[in-house]
Amino acid sequence: MRAGKPDPRGGKTATSDLEERHDVQGRQQGDRYVRIVRPFQNEFQRKSAGHLVATEEVLAPTSAPGRLADRARRLLFGARIPTAHEIQERVGKAKGLAVFASDNISSSAYATEEIMRVLLLAGLGTMAALTLPITLVIIAVLAIVVLSYQQTIRAYPNGGGSYIVASDNLGPFPGLTAAGALLTDYVLTVSVSIAAGVAALTSIFPELFDARVALGVAFVAVLAIGNMRGIRESATIFAVPTYIYLVAIFGLLAYGLFRAATGTLPEYSAPQAWRDAAAVEPLGILLVLRAFASGSVALTGVEAVSNGVPAFKPPEWRNAQVVLILMGSFFGAIFLGMSLLAGQLGIVPDPSEQETVVSQLTRTLVGAGSPFHYLVQISTALLLVLAANTAFADFPRLSSILARDRFMPHYFQFRGDRLAFTTGIVALALLSAVLIFAFGGSVTHLIPLYTIGVFVAFTLSQSGMVRHWWKLRGTEQGWRWRAGLNALGAVATAIVAVVVGVAKFALGAWMVLVLIPALIALIWAINRHYRKVEDALTLDRPDAALPRRAAPRVLVLLARLDRASLEALGYARSIAPLVTAVHVTDDPAEAERMRARWRQLDVDGDTDLVILESPYRALIPPLLAYIDALQAQDPERPITVVLSEFIPRRPWEYLLHNQAALRLKLRLFFRPNTVVIDVPYHV
Amino acid sequence: MRAGKPDPRGGKTATSDLEERHDVQGRQQGDRYVRIVRPFQNEFQRKSAGHLVATEEVLAPTSAPGRLADRARRLLFGARIPTAHEIQERVGKAKGLAVFASDNISSSAYATEEIMRVLLLAGLGTMAALTLPITLVIIAVLAIVVLSYQQTIRAYPNGGGSYIVASDNLGPFPGLTAAGALLTDYVLTVSVSIAAGVAALTSIFPELFDARVALGVAFVAVLAIGNMRGIRESATIFAVPTYIYLVAIFGLLAYGLFRAATGTLPEYSAPQAWRDAAAVEPLGILLVLRAFASGSVALTGVEAVSNGVPAFKPPEWRNAQVVLILMGSFFGAIFLGMSLLAGQLGIVPDPSEQETVVSQLTRTLVGAGSPFHYLVQISTALLLVLAANTAFADFPRLSSILARDRFMPHYFQFRGDRLAFTTGIVALALLSAVLIFAFGGSVTHLIPLYTIGVFVAFTLSQSGMVRHWWKLRGTEQGWRWRAGLNALGAVATAIVAVVVGVAKFALGAWMVLVLIPALIALIWAINRHYRKVEDALTLDRPDAALPRRAAPRVLVLLARLDRASLEALGYARSIAPLVTAVHVTDDPAEAERMRARWRQLDVDGDTDLVILESPYRALIPPLLAYIDALQAQDPERPITVVLSEFIPRRPWEYLLHNQAALRLKLRLFFRPNTVVIDVPYHV
Repeated sequence: MRAGKPDPRGGKTATSDLEERHDVQGRQQGDRYVRIVRPFQNEFQRKSAGHLVATEEVLAPTSAPGRLADRARRLLFGARIPTAHEIQERVGKAKGLAVFASDNISSSAYATEEIMRVLLLAGLGTMAALTLPITLVIIAVLAIVVLSYQQTIRAYPNGGGSYIVASDNLGPFPGLTAAGALLTDYVLTVSVSIAAGVAALTSIFPELFDARVALGVAFVAVLAIGNMRGIRESATIFAVPTYIYLVAIFGLLAYGLFRAATGTLPEYSAPQAWRDAAAVEPLGILLVLRAFASGSVALTGVEAVSNGVPAFKPPEWRNAQVVLILMGSFFGAIFLGMSLLAGQLGIVPDPSEQETVVSQLTRTLVGAGSPFHYLVQISTALLLVLAANTAFADFPRLSSILARDRFMPHYFQFRGDRLAFTTGIVALALLSAVLIFAFGGSVTHLIPLYTIGVFVAFTLSQSGMVRHWWKLRGTEQGWRWRAGLNALGAVATAIVAVVVGVAKFALGAWMVLVLIPALIALIWAINRHYRKVEDALTLDRPDAALPRRAAPRVLVLLARLDRASLEALGYARSIAPLVTAVHVTDDPAEAERMRARWRQLDVDGDTDLVILESPYRALIPPLLAYIDALQAQDPERPITVVLSEFIPRRPWEYLLHNQAALRLKLRLFFRPNTVVIDVPYHV
Repeated sequence: MRAGKPDPRGGKTATSDLEERHDVQGRQQGDRYVRIVRPFQNEFQRKSAGHLVATEEVLAPTSAPGRLADRARRLLFGARIPTAHEIQERVGKAKGLAVFASDNISSSAYATEEIMRVLLLAGLGTMAALTLPITLVIIAVLAIVVLSYQQTIRAYPNGGGSYIVASDNLGPFPGLTAAGALLTDYVLTVSVSIAAGVAALTSIFPELFDARVALGVAFVAVLAIGNMRGIRESATIFAVPTYIYLVAIFGLLAYGLFRAATGTLPEYSAPQAWRDAAAVEPLGILLVLRAFASGSVALTGVEAVSNGVPAFKPPEWRNAQVVLILMGSFFGAIFLGMSLLAGQLGIVPDPSEQETVVSQLTRTLVGAGSPFHYLVQISTALLLVLAANTAFADFPRLSSILARDRFMPHYFQFRGDRLAFTTGIVALALLSAVLIFAFGGSVTHLIPLYTIGVFVAFTLSQSGMVRHWWKLRGTEQGWRWRAGLNALGAVATAIVAVVVGVAKFALGAWMVLVLIPALIALIWAINRHYRKVEDALTLDRPDAALPRRAAPRVLVLLARLDRASLEALGYARSIAPLVTAVHVTDDPAEAERMRARWRQLDVDGDTDLVILESPYRALIPPLLAYIDALQAQDPERPITVVLSEFIPRRPWEYLLHNQAALRLKLRLFFRPNTVVIDVPYHV
């Protein structure tokens, strides 16, 4: 290095030398970074040496439109919440029932109707005869599943979702199957519940019927926004509509049963068109199975309680068990009462799905347009929206667990401003909105897709429990009857899964039977990829040395000699001792002009110009060949290509610049041992 | 710098020191680059020190699919042509007529028909009475324009396209208006000629009628591919169909006129349905003007000869003048003969556009399906395709001139493997194919859009010539009558432009009247942008010094401590003396783990770790705030952010990585004085 010349690498002029010393001093005192940040104390707080904690100030937008957008965001989603302020609100039995039972209990809004719709195909008589027996069978299965899950709650006080129980006891593959089934199920919970909620509303406001798809999508959007706000925190919001629904519906059923017992049921008569739609298929075993499969939608949401055990107040498992029993009893009672009364009144489902069976039943008992009719319908709609909301809590949580276990992309773990799992919420909202749109907002068309996933997850979870008790056979008293009970649950739910799959196959269940394996394959491929990357990236030893690399060989691609390229050359010369400017041209005369202009420049000895003449006019191949030649001479030394990128002020102006640079970057990106540096030039 | 420690900036270890010396030696001998390229002599030839010429070898693909693609490309487009091999083929009068007249002469295939179609709306009688007079008026305008252009040829021996003449004499804005009009016109030349060519074919092969849009688009594709090959080079390909057409059509007309003179014309009778379609509008002045406007399509292509003067053999201007006169005479004779005979025979245009008037006329005279009928139709179709082809030469050439003058994006100047202006060819093909598709391949629907642009360009060009003669008034003999002749041309074409604009406004001319100003505004905005950029980028002095910048402050963003991040740290330490690793996390426990892992590493004193804790979970804002703080401390020193980017093997795997890095890059891209370096890590 010649004296009096600045060092090209350190850039040490008289001034910067001073700064460097100043820096090093600071570092030796261990508080350089704090000093640096002193003028920005609003934005960082020092925790220890080299450990700064950002304040909310760093998120403050600086531009006027940014501030406006930020204000709008706060209005929509609420103020930001720091991670440390996460609240684990615990619920007792009363609120717990409201939070965890809405998904299941809300099925009573459509379970009876879906059974009747299938049976109606074989005629009014068949429907009248078989609706109640099928309801009773389903309630029996529900009882088995509830008892079976009582044990899961006891065994998994930290939350026993199907994914966890199946992974724990049966291994990763059954666990993933349960996860795939559950993810599908959550999407359908949203679609079906919202569609049913809209149907409850259009029963009293028929003029909304034509807008049911738009209404459904709007509800999904409201739920997505609400969950980005983090509405999960407040249980009170759940309690009100759930209890209003329970009071209203039990009141209705009690009144109806009293009238039935006294023989004073009002007259009901379905329009002739509805009756004519009946009896288009013969009664056969498959039809009965299909009716059963449709009704088994009644069991959806049962696993919610066992998922959420840690959210209960102590004793958690005891409270959860009580809530599960209450939920099963309430739901069973409503379901039974509804099927009984619908049969007594001779209600016929509306083939156009304009009015629900619940609405017909209520209207017949208390009069159309009476306040009670409105109360029942609106509280039903609210409950169904809440049911959809539980999926908005469960889907993002399950996907974040899967992402943590490296089965889904990392960003499903990311929590937004309000601690909500943004990606999961958005994914769920999009998928369920697409389903509502694709199936025209019809509950009956969506139902065949719904129950498969639920029962696959049930079966795997219960089988996992059987295995669980078997593992504890030495220590646990009564493991035999416990395993037996779970085995009964597993068998019952497996049978239902098969029945649903067979009976509803052609109606849409095939989609789910294709989707779940595809989802599992995808999850598996993602996991395999992450594991491979982890293997490839993990350091052999934790005390590895930070590498010292040779200074790169730096090429600066020059299109012209202008301020932007001088900027790039200046940057290149600040990071490496020897820099080569490269100019590619197809015109020999232009090459001479470039050489002459270069000679005019005041260039010191460290930087040379190489002209690559390209008679075939291609830009990138000659450059790549030249880089290959350099690399062959000195294989260890990384190649660095510096491009000067002109940054225009307006986005459309991009189309007028940097096209060649973009293509070059793409090509060099895949070249090993090569780094591309864009030196932006802002006008 | 401590002894025994490698220099962090130069990366000088014992070995690399040696290499450095070796490099510098090479450079001092002035032939370092040649030595470097020695093992790659196939790929480069040395022209002088620091000036290498790439051979075709650099373009050779290295992978098997690449070789296959290259072979396919060669098959389709031909072998690559180096720039130096560009051939300027000169043409004489005979070939010149074929090359430059096909656009104009081919209009005879539809000019008469388009007049008749408009007149037919006022009844068969009106059509019979007015077709010939309107034809004569148009031929008179043609004569004026041809004489006017004779002078342009004389005055602009290097090619006097409307853009050049108008820019030269009237200033940039009229020049750009002419350019915008011409670009529009070229697109429509392709659409109309191809649509008419397809109509000539479907007249003899009616079964192709339903596929006419697909056929038209296919012809456009063939022309685009052909022009990428560079078929413009060979004039012979043009000569054959043009002369076959001339011979066939003159034979037909002579035969027809002989039969007419001898009173032996065969009987013709149009189907009743065609006659019924007539007389739906009253005869008025606007209808006559519309018929005139439709027929003025006959003048399209006249400017081609004056555009192409330098392509003629010497004496260029004299040959070009002769060709222009010949073209005008031939076209006028055909147009007149066609209108005369169609009137004599009483031909009625087919409202469904299934058979052209020329085909009906030929069929009536020589018998349907006779070889001569086929000859006329096929040579007409070929000539029309050639006419479209002239636009494929003119549009890319004009856009490359506009790009050179910085009125269009740079890449319109780029010439591909075969010296063709690829971007212009592709743009023209896409635009004209879209038009054919949008107008269902109908000539009659496209015609209203066509002629506006032509006559606007004519008017500007002729006005420019008037100005030209005025400027030469001192030196040029007879400038008065020359200016007068051009003024007559300008007035005549201006009148036609206004007539077309008014008469066809509602039929589609409005689109062009909107499009041309929009195009001019776009071209102007592009030019303004390029000029501003040029102003901002041009060096103040040609002997500016290459800047010496301070070494950048380098931050390495660490997500984890793994091989990829060590690679990035190694690279960072090779380009700057002081490197700071930055880790952003929302989890205090994770921060502690990172700190502990960092302590385990073998880090020397030049690299520190800073942890930014982000309680609100955002990644980018705290980092930006930290960078701002650093920058505020030392505003001169550029900030460099090094990211380690993991490069997966398969494209879909990208979705699982680098999402945060991508967003960060986008944000930093717009930050002044900041450079982002991606250090790719290939598994």
